[in-house]
Amino acid sequence: MLDDLKEKVLDANLELVHRGLVLYTFGNASGIDRKRGLVAIKPSGVPYETMTAQDMVVTDLNGKIVGGTLKASSDLATHLELYRAFPGIGGVVHTHSEYATAWAQAGREIPPYGTTHADYFYGPVPVTEELSAEEIGGDYVLNTGKAIVRRFRELDPEAVPGVLVAGHAPFAWGKDPMQAAYHAVVLEAVARMAYYTATLNPECSGVSQALLDRHYFRKHGAKATYGQGG
Amino acid sequence: MLDDLKEKVLDANLELVHRGLVLYTFGNASGIDRKRGLVAIKPSGVPYETMTAQDMVVTDLNGKIVGGTLKASSDLATHLELYRAFPGIGGVVHTHSEYATAWAQAGREIPPYGTTHADYFYGPVPVTEELSAEEIGGDYVLNTGKAIVRRFRELDPEAVPGVLVAGHAPFAWGKDPMQAAYHAVVLEAVARMAYYTATLNPECSGVSQALLDRHYFRKHGAKATYGQGG
Amino acid sequence: MLDDLKEKVLDANLELVHRGLVLYTFGNASGIDRKRGLVAIKPSGVPYETMTAQDMVVTDLNGKIVGGTLKASSDLATHLELYRAFPGIGGVVHTHSEYATAWAQAGREIPPYGTTHADYFYGPVPVTEELSAEEIGGDYVLNTGKAIVRRFRELDPEAVPGVLVAGHAPFAWGKDPMQAAYHAVVLEAVARMAYYTATLNPECSGVSQALLDRHYFRKHGAKATYGQGG
Amino acid sequence: MLDDLKEKVLDANLELVHRGLVLYTFGNASGIDRKRGLVAIKPSGVPYETMTAQDMVVTDLNGKIVGGTLKASSDLATHLELYRAFPGIGGVVHTHSEYATAWAQAGREIPPYGTTHADYFYGPVPVTEELSAEEIGGDYVLNTGKAIVRRFRELDPEAVPGVLVAGHAPFAWGKDPMQAAYHAVVLEAVARMAYYTATLNPECSGVSQALLDRHYFRKHGAKATYGQGG
Repeated sequence: MLDDLKEKVLDANLELVHRGLVLYTFGNASGIDRKRGLVAIKPSGVPYETMTAQDMVVTDLNGKIVGGTLKASSDLATHLELYRAFPGIGGVVHTHSEYATAWAQAGREIPPYGTTHADYFYGPVPVTEELSAEEIGGDYVLNTGKAIVRRFRELDPEAVPGVLVAGHAPFAWGKDPMQAAYHAVVLEAVARMAYYTATLNPECSGVSQALLDRHYFRKHGAKATYGQGG
Repeated sequence: MLDDLKEKVLDANLELVHRGLVLYTFGNASGIDRKRGLVAIKPSGVPYETMTAQDMVVTDLNGKIVGGTLKASSDLATHLELYRAFPGIGGVVHTHSEYATAWAQAGREIPPYGTTHADYFYGPVPVTEELSAEEIGGDYVLNTGKAIVRRFRELDPEAVPGVLVAGHAPFAWGKDPMQAAYHAVVLEAVARMAYYTATLNPECSGVSQALLDRHYFRKHGAKATYGQGG
Repeated sequence: MLDDLKEKVLDANLELVHRGLVLYTFGNASGIDRKRGLVAIKPSGVPYETMTAQDMVVTDLNGKIVGGTLKASSDLATHLELYRAFPGIGGVVHTHSEYATAWAQAGREIPPYGTTHADYFYGPVPVTEELSAEEIGGDYVLNTGKAIVRRFRELDPEAVPGVLVAGHAPFAWGKDPMQAAYHAVVLEAVARMAYYTATLNPECSGVSQALLDRHYFRKHGAKATYGQGG
Repeated sequence: MLDDLKEKVLDANLELVHRGLVLYTFGNASGIDRKRGLVAIKPSGVPYETMTAQDMVVTDLNGKIVGGTLKASSDLATHLELYRAFPGIGGVVHTHSEYATAWAQAGREIPPYGTTHADYFYGPVPVTEELSAEEIGGDYVLNTGKAIVRRFRELDPEAVPGVLVAGHAPFAWGKDPMQAAYHAVVLEAVARMAYYTATLNPECSGVSQALLDRHYFRKHGAKATYGQGG
C-alpha cells in the first residue's frame, strides 16, 4: 500500500542525511496522498543506515495507524496538523539542523537579508510564540503544530515554506516530500548566512520589498524565468 | 579476559573518530564490568587507525593494571573516580571536542537553550570549579575527577550525563561505553548550537522548566514515547 | 562549435562543486571566445551531477542564443555586461558562497586584512550600491551587471577580480573560466578569514599599503616571484 | 641526495592537505639535515596532487640551490632564517590555515585558554610586530624570518613551537618535518577553540600558570606521562 509514497518519503529522509542536516536518528520527513488522506512518515528512532521504504509508517489524518509495523515518529501529530491546515502541501520535514535551530533557540525570526533567502522565502522565516506550560503539559506535539498554524494565520505557507518553533527547531514543507527536504536544506543555508550577516552587521535591515518581489517571482508563478520549465 | 568489554570500549573510541570529535590521538573512552569491578580503557597516545580491542588496558577500580601490555590513557584516574562515585554509569568518554571545550575554556555552563539539549540533559551542562594550584600540583588527574564529583553533589549524573571541566574540556558518560560516546557527540552538537544561540541573542534565557520536563521525560523514564522500545 | 570553450566552462562549473561553493543548482560559470565574440554559459537549473559540455549554452555578446538546446543561466545578462565592460577577462563566475554572500548581505566591503587577501585582491573587495526599485523592476539582471561596472569605474578589474553585489552575492572573474572559479574559491576563503578577523578585532584596520603592494606584485606583473613560471 | 629527508618533507606537506590546512598550492613544509647543513623544501606553486619527493628543492643554509630542478617555495628565506636562529628544530611549516591566520590578521596573540593549548604551547602563541615599510620593501621574506626571531628573543622555540606573523599567517616548527606539520595542525585547532572562547567570553583570562606547567610538562621533559614512551 502506498509503495510509491513510501519510497518518496524514504528518499526525502535520506536527503536529510546526505545534506548533513541530521545526527543519529534526529529528524523526520513525511508525505501525504491527498486523495486517500493517508500520510507516510519515518518510524521513531530507527537508524537511517538500515531504513527501508517498508519501514515507513502509514496513518490517516487523525493519526490512526493503517500500515507498517513500527511506531511512527514521535513528531507525527505536528506533521498531521500541518497537513490538515495547509491543504496545498504534500510533504513535511522536521530537523534540528544547527543554524536554523540556533535562530529558533534565540527566538529570532530570520530576516530576508539577501536574494538566496528571497528565492525561497517571501519574507522573514517566522518564529512561533512559545508554548504555554498548559500547552506543553497537554498534547504537546499537536500543540506544536497548532502554534505553527497560528503563526501562519496571515501568512501563505506556499510563499514561506518553513518556520522556526521557538526554543525547539525548524519545520519545512513543500509540494512533495523531496521538495520539503529541499526547503529544509535551503533554510539551513539561509540560516547560516543570516547568522554570519547578523554578527557582521547587527544593524542590517535586509533587502527591499522590490528585491524580495523580484527574486521570489523569478522562481515562482507564471512569470518564473529560472530553470528549464515553461 | 573481558574481550566483550574491550570490543565495546574500542567501538566507543572509534565512534569518537567517526563523528569528528577527536584529532590525532586526543580523547579516550572506557567501560566497566561492574560485577568484576574492572575497567577497560584506551591506551595512551596510540593512533586510532591501528588500535585493536586487545590494546585496551584493564585495571581495577584503584588503577592497578590487571591486563594489557600498554600504558593506560593518562586520564585514567579521572575515569576511575567517576566510576567510583556514579554507580549507575557503565562508560566514560573524554574528548577535546571543540565547541564543548570552548564553553569549558570560557568557564560558562551550557544553558538549556532548546529541546535538543532537553532531550539529553535535564538542566544546564555544568562547569566545574577551577582546580587550585595545590590540586593541580598534587594528584591532578584524580583531582579532576573529584572536582567533577563535587560539582554533581546536588545533581543526578544519569539526568545530566556530561560536564565541562573548567579550562579543560568535557567528560560524558552513559550506561555503557557507546552511550557515553553518544552523549559526547550530542554534547558537542548542543554546545555548537548553544554557541550560535548565545552569540545571536546574548540575553537568551533558555527554555522553560515545563519544556525541559517534557522533552527530557519524552526520552527517559516509564512514560518515554521516543523510539521503538516499550 | 566552441567545444573547447564548452569543456572549459563545464570544468569551471564543476570546480565550484568540488570546492564546496555551491548547493544544488546554485551558481554558474561562463567563458568567452573573444575572437568570435561568443560566450558559453551553464544552463539554468540543471543538476551539476549530470551536466555535460554539450549542455553549455552559447550566445553572442547581446544574449542571442547561437548554440545549445537549453535555456541559459538566468544570470546571463550580468555575465555579458561584465564581458562587454571588462575586455581583459575571459571567464566569469557567480556563486552564493556563504561567507562572501554574508559580507554582501551585510553591505560591507571586505577589507584587506592580510596577505592571503593581498595575494589576489589589490585593495578591498568592493560592494556595489543597492539597486533602486526602478532598476530592480526593470532589466534586473542586466542592471546588476551595470551596478558592478559602475563600482569599478575607478578600479582595475584585473587587480580586483571580484565584487560583492549588495544584498545578493559575489561575482568573480579571471583570464579564463577556471581562473574565474579559482578567484571565487579564494574569495570565499578570504571572506571566511575576514569574518573571523572582524569579529575577533572589530577595530582591525588591515594591512599597510606597502604590504598590499608587496604581496600583490609577488604574484602579478613582470617581477612576480611565485610559481614555476618565468 | 637526501632522499630520506625529501620523503619526510613530502609527507609533511601532504599531511597539511590531509588535515585540511591548505587550499590549492598554499602552504609549505621543509626539513633540515643538520649534519650537512642542507634544507629540503616544497617547490613553489606546484599542485600537491602530483608532487613527488624528487620535486623537493635542496638548498644550503644561505639559500644556494644544490639539488632539484624546480624553484623553491617563495617563503624559503623565512624557513632558512628559522633554521639558522633555532638550532634545535628540524622542520618548519607555513600555512594560511584559517583560524590561526585570523588571529594573525587581528594582530592578537592566542592566549592559553585551556589545556589543549597548554599541552603544546607553554604560554601564548605570540604575534610578531608588523614589519616596517622598509622591511617590506627590502628583503621581505628574510625580514619576516627576522621578525619571528626577534619575537622569540625571550622565548624558547621548543616550548612554543609556533608563531603568528602579524597581518599574514602562522609558522610552526618541530624536531622534524612531520612534527612541524603536527604542530601546525594543533595550532589551527587551538586557534579555532580560542576564537570560540574569546567570542563567548571576551573577559576570559585563560588558565593559571600552575595548569600551564602541569599540562606542558605532562607531554614534555623527563617526567612526561603521556604516550607509550619511557
